[in-house]
Amino acid sequence: MKNLQCQLASRPVGEPKTSDFNYVEAEVRQPSEGEVLVKNLFLSLDPAMRGWMMDNKKSYIPPVGLGEVMRALGIGKVIESNDEKYAAGDYVSGLLGVQQYMTGSAKAVGGLTKVSAGQIPLERYLSVMGMPGMTAYHGLLVEAKPQPGETVVISGASGAVGAVVGQIAKIKGCKVIGIAGGEEKCRYITEELGFDAAIDYKNTNVTAALREHCPKGLDIYFDNVGGEILDAALANLAMHARIIVCGAISQYNNSGEMNGPKNYLAILPARATMRGIVVMDYVRNYADAAMEMAQWMAAGKLKAREDVYEGVENYPDVLMKLFTGDNQGKLVLKVGEDD
Amino acid sequence: MKNLQCQLASRPVGEPKTSDFNYVEAEVRQPSEGEVLVKNLFLSLDPAMRGWMMDNKKSYIPPVGLGEVMRALGIGKVIESNDEKYAAGDYVSGLLGVQQYMTGSAKAVGGLTKVSAGQIPLERYLSVMGMPGMTAYHGLLVEAKPQPGETVVISGASGAVGAVVGQIAKIKGCKVIGIAGGEEKCRYITEELGFDAAIDYKNTNVTAALREHCPKGLDIYFDNVGGEILDAALANLAMHARIIVCGAISQYNNSGEMNGPKNYLAILPARATMRGIVVMDYVRNYADAAMEMAQWMAAGKLKAREDVYEGVENYPDVLMKLFTGDNQGKLVLKVGEDD
Repeated sequence: MKNLQCQLASRPVGEPKTSDFNYVEAEVRQPSEGEVLVKNLFLSLDPAMRGWMMDNKKSYIPPVGLGEVMRALGIGKVIESNDEKYAAGDYVSGLLGVQQYMTGSAKAVGGLTKVSAGQIPLERYLSVMGMPGMTAYHGLLVEAKPQPGETVVISGASGAVGAVVGQIAKIKGCKVIGIAGGEEKCRYITEELGFDAAIDYKNTNVTAALREHCPKGLDIYFDNVGGEILDAALANLAMHARIIVCGAISQYNNSGEMNGPKNYLAILPARATMRGIVVMDYVRNYADAAMEMAQWMAAGKLKAREDVYEGVENYPDVLMKLFTGDNQGKLVLKVGEDD
Repeated sequence: MKNLQCQLASRPVGEPKTSDFNYVEAEVRQPSEGEVLVKNLFLSLDPAMRGWMMDNKKSYIPPVGLGEVMRALGIGKVIESNDEKYAAGDYVSGLLGVQQYMTGSAKAVGGLTKVSAGQIPLERYLSVMGMPGMTAYHGLLVEAKPQPGETVVISGASGAVGAVVGQIAKIKGCKVIGIAGGEEKCRYITEELGFDAAIDYKNTNVTAALREHCPKGLDIYFDNVGGEILDAALANLAMHARIIVCGAISQYNNSGEMNGPKNYLAILPARATMRGIVVMDYVRNYADAAMEMAQWMAAGKLKAREDVYEGVENYPDVLMKLFTGDNQGKLVLKVGEDD
């Protein structure tokens, strides 16, 4: 049985290119004592992957080595197990890698979590019920602590994290403004997700639009994009505003220096805070958060959308949709059939 | 009786110049009902003054109008009073302005606080016992919450705020690294103030020096300067680092855009916070803070240094010492004799 694997061949300069990856077809390795063999079904394509490709910056996780299988979170099905905690037929989520099969121990990949099939689509464990949902839930509720009536602004608002942040903020009684690129995404977050307003950054002066939508300034800004949109938010802070720095996708492919927020000193008169968050910090609360979000989903208050593409061989091209903004919802790559 | 007043004539572009001010010699106005006449003795020259000259940025206080007397905190002596709360001979601190005499009501200038002469030099009410001391005390203790054994890094470390931050951090059992410009300032903070180390930013690679002095990263960074030194600090954060944004003197005379911190995303893996502070927020605690700092001064644990120049007519030139780094300690302008 063959295992098509996508290895990191070189550290990308600017946008990742097909030539930064190397595909090899290996034999599927049989699991040793304590190991499992997993058939990968869905892989999560995330902005964080751009950082995992680099070794020149301090990060929360070591870089992927050159020649190693590209790191990816995924959902798979155990097909052989020499670990008594897992049985053939179990569905698991974990760092399965950009490949068709993963052979290894749960410990070696940083843990494999069993997920239950049948209740929700498996790919949803990579969106609302996975890292993006956990990031949104904890970044907003634990760190930004929204109060009813406050104004919450979100960049990357139709994305996997942003869409969940906005819906939870609505559940908590906030006024929610989403910033997204293009009419369709703006329509989606207002008409389907119930945001109060959307700002199309591709066709609007974001600073002016924020001033209009937030006449008293914004209380919470949840940032997924960095760059000029972060500066626009900084220009519109209410007193004691909380800025959650979750990511900066606009800057990840800069081959030169990052653009720092020119307006950062606005946090001084506003007595505002900027706080960096990393989802792993909240792992002890994942189960409770999942339960609460499942209830919101069942009540129709929290909607999910995955944008599923197919074929492990298409990883580099599909990944780029994150940076061009072409994806509609959580970007997922289907790499195997659940047969 | 004549009153030499320094008015703001134009909003400076880049460094303030003599031509941005206009000196007029007015008659001293007699106090009306409820007003006092104060002879100004010492004026505080502060980085914040640069911001008060501008009307293009949101701030915590309105800008000085063109043709108005330049705003300044000062210490003066009441020489006539039509307000029963003050008597001739009282010493007061408040927004007395860059002039020789101030006629007005306490309310109109945002409050006049009586200070007691004789115990400490009057100019000290503009340094440790004034706004810079209050900024240092509350920014460090209330917002950054230093713990014994933590590493505290301070920029503008020999300045009016920085020197107090560092000494209080030492009192609280921290390792203290100061960043300052030139050998004399570095000698001062280590030999006279007891900092553990000094980094001369004019002759050292600050990023590398911080890496050496803070092998585990810095826990608290108290920033008075912004710019490249802020970026160097961001490159050396420990987990859960707290960055207090007190000012950015390196950027105040930029005629173009502010340089944003290119390394701001370092707060993400470090789960760090950047927080803007404004000293007025802690006004209810000023008296307690003053008492504690007076005790530290009496015990020899907290030292003050003022750099006193003379002559209200020299305001523009003396102010520039803040931006060139020429001052040694809190910059004060003596504008009248206590006779």
